[in-house]
Amino acid sequence: MKKLVNDPKRVVEESVAGFASAHADLVTASSDPLFIARAGGATRGKVGLVSGGGSGHEPLHAGFVGYGMLDAAVPGPVFTSPTPDPIVAATKAADGGAGVLHIVKNYTGDVLNFETAADLALAEGIEVRAVVTDDDVAVRDSLYTAGRRGVAGTVLVERIAGAAAERGDDLDAVAGIAERVNANVRSMGVALTPCVVPHAGEPSFELADDEIELGIGIHGEPGRTRTKLVSADEVVDLLLDPILADLPFGEGDRTLLFVNGMGGTPLVELYIFFRRAAEVLGERGIAVERSLVGNFVTSLEMQGASITVLKLDDELVELWDSPLHTAALRWGR
Amino acid sequence: MKKLVNDPKRVVEESVAGFASAHADLVTASSDPLFIARAGGATRGKVGLVSGGGSGHEPLHAGFVGYGMLDAAVPGPVFTSPTPDPIVAATKAADGGAGVLHIVKNYTGDVLNFETAADLALAEGIEVRAVVTDDDVAVRDSLYTAGRRGVAGTVLVERIAGAAAERGDDLDAVAGIAERVNANVRSMGVALTPCVVPHAGEPSFELADDEIELGIGIHGEPGRTRTKLVSADEVVDLLLDPILADLPFGEGDRTLLFVNGMGGTPLVELYIFFRRAAEVLGERGIAVERSLVGNFVTSLEMQGASITVLKLDDELVELWDSPLHTAALRWGR
Repeated sequence: MKKLVNDPKRVVEESVAGFASAHADLVTASSDPLFIARAGGATRGKVGLVSGGGSGHEPLHAGFVGYGMLDAAVPGPVFTSPTPDPIVAATKAADGGAGVLHIVKNYTGDVLNFETAADLALAEGIEVRAVVTDDDVAVRDSLYTAGRRGVAGTVLVERIAGAAAERGDDLDAVAGIAERVNANVRSMGVALTPCVVPHAGEPSFELADDEIELGIGIHGEPGRTRTKLVSADEVVDLLLDPILADLPFGEGDRTLLFVNGMGGTPLVELYIFFRRAAEVLGERGIAVERSLVGNFVTSLEMQGASITVLKLDDELVELWDSPLHTAALRWGR
Repeated sequence: MKKLVNDPKRVVEESVAGFASAHADLVTASSDPLFIARAGGATRGKVGLVSGGGSGHEPLHAGFVGYGMLDAAVPGPVFTSPTPDPIVAATKAADGGAGVLHIVKNYTGDVLNFETAADLALAEGIEVRAVVTDDDVAVRDSLYTAGRRGVAGTVLVERIAGAAAERGDDLDAVAGIAERVNANVRSMGVALTPCVVPHAGEPSFELADDEIELGIGIHGEPGRTRTKLVSADEVVDLLLDPILADLPFGEGDRTLLFVNGMGGTPLVELYIFFRRAAEVLGERGIAVERSLVGNFVTSLEMQGASITVLKLDDELVELWDSPLHTAALRWGR
């Protein structure tokens, strides 16, 4: 295993410490239990937003704590759900008296632990709602999931629900916006290489030198199919077809197009991906009104990418564009 | 070679097209000759800033075109300098009547081609000044360089000089600020793996499974020494010692600490790097007043990282913090 780490068992703890040190103007980190919250604490009267899950997907979720997005994030061990305790602590830290929304990627461990945490928080008088994201069209059930997996679309849910909370929406309304984004977003990914979980020290799966996996999960769990490496344009087409058919997206739709890197794929390739995806949408009469390109929901150093398409309306555009200040995404302030 | 590309010879052209499509609110791309400029054209009366160099280092330089940073960027073929023609075209596009500053990383090909372009632009009546960045302390002369190489510190030069231009400084003053940043910034990097240039199809160099290269260049050119893989903290110490000794940085200094990923190293490792680097600076009484962590000057999918330290003063902090809007860095607007 070739990584810039110290003790493989302390990777998350040390990385969170570095993150909090680099972004002390934005966040504070609690080390036991481990969670990240906004510097300055919860905003009185604002709905709090909490997300979390296994580490290794950075900047998700800690990189999205800040004005206009999350109030707290709970990093579990690499590719492993956090336990309820730190989720409860993060929920308390995010509570400004208007209730807290949990945004949970649909993985069995995350869903169970966030549910338990919500019960425990409720017992302490904090009203909690949960939205489970499940934007991945690749597989119906998966290795770690009943139903579809929550992947890169989660970033869009967190950002737009965060904007609604900042605007002053109540808990029902913020949850409603989050559900609406989740209902209108679809994703699918591809892997060229596996990644190595530090405490395991071995690749998470194997792929031949000329093979790619379509519909890969963000932990390297199996996708739809393995195929020979084909051109970038062909890969885009193989990902976009099921995405566009699923909602379905159609002529006249307005969209946000998000090309996400899995961590180890250079930007130069992500933009080649974006070019073709925008071209295909254009051919089908689907407008790309907003775009996002970069490594936002990663699988450590995995090479690969995913495409996410969100159907927009005026309100979602307004919320997307509103001021945002986190470590990984920032605009308008 | 396992990459998300179409024709390896068209990687740069297609990627630039995708970049321009994703960021049409910020930039326009000219395809022949190939360069990227701000959407809306040059700002009347403002000094124009142009940078460029071989591709494969994205988001450098095109990702830094926009308000508060560059006016135009010239991407050459992967790891190969652009010829004078597109540099002249970019210089014209960046000219708002107050002259143009070329920011050139110190590589022989880049320096020569930017010099030729400056002569050609002058013949067309555009006053051009050049600042050559050479922040890499690793080696005195290198495979492609007389003198030190220009690496990640170039981002800080581009941003701060861009802020000075936006504030209304004249060409001499903007060049002076750029020189001052370059004189006060030092960098050094490490590679864990090579990268594969698309049109070559082979790794740029070889490293054993337990070997790292200290002082690596951003094209994989040789550094100071190869050593066995050691812990992240030890690597940070091996990079920081020559950086801090070189300026030299000392007790009471105020700094910007920049941990840059080479492309294929996950954020979780970059923040472990940052943690140790901030700790060492703290122990030496050097204050970290600003920070930057991420993949900004990359070598395609190379795994590795570099550390850059810039000595700050009140004016540099004010310029750093001023509004900025590019594809890769944005704040304050």
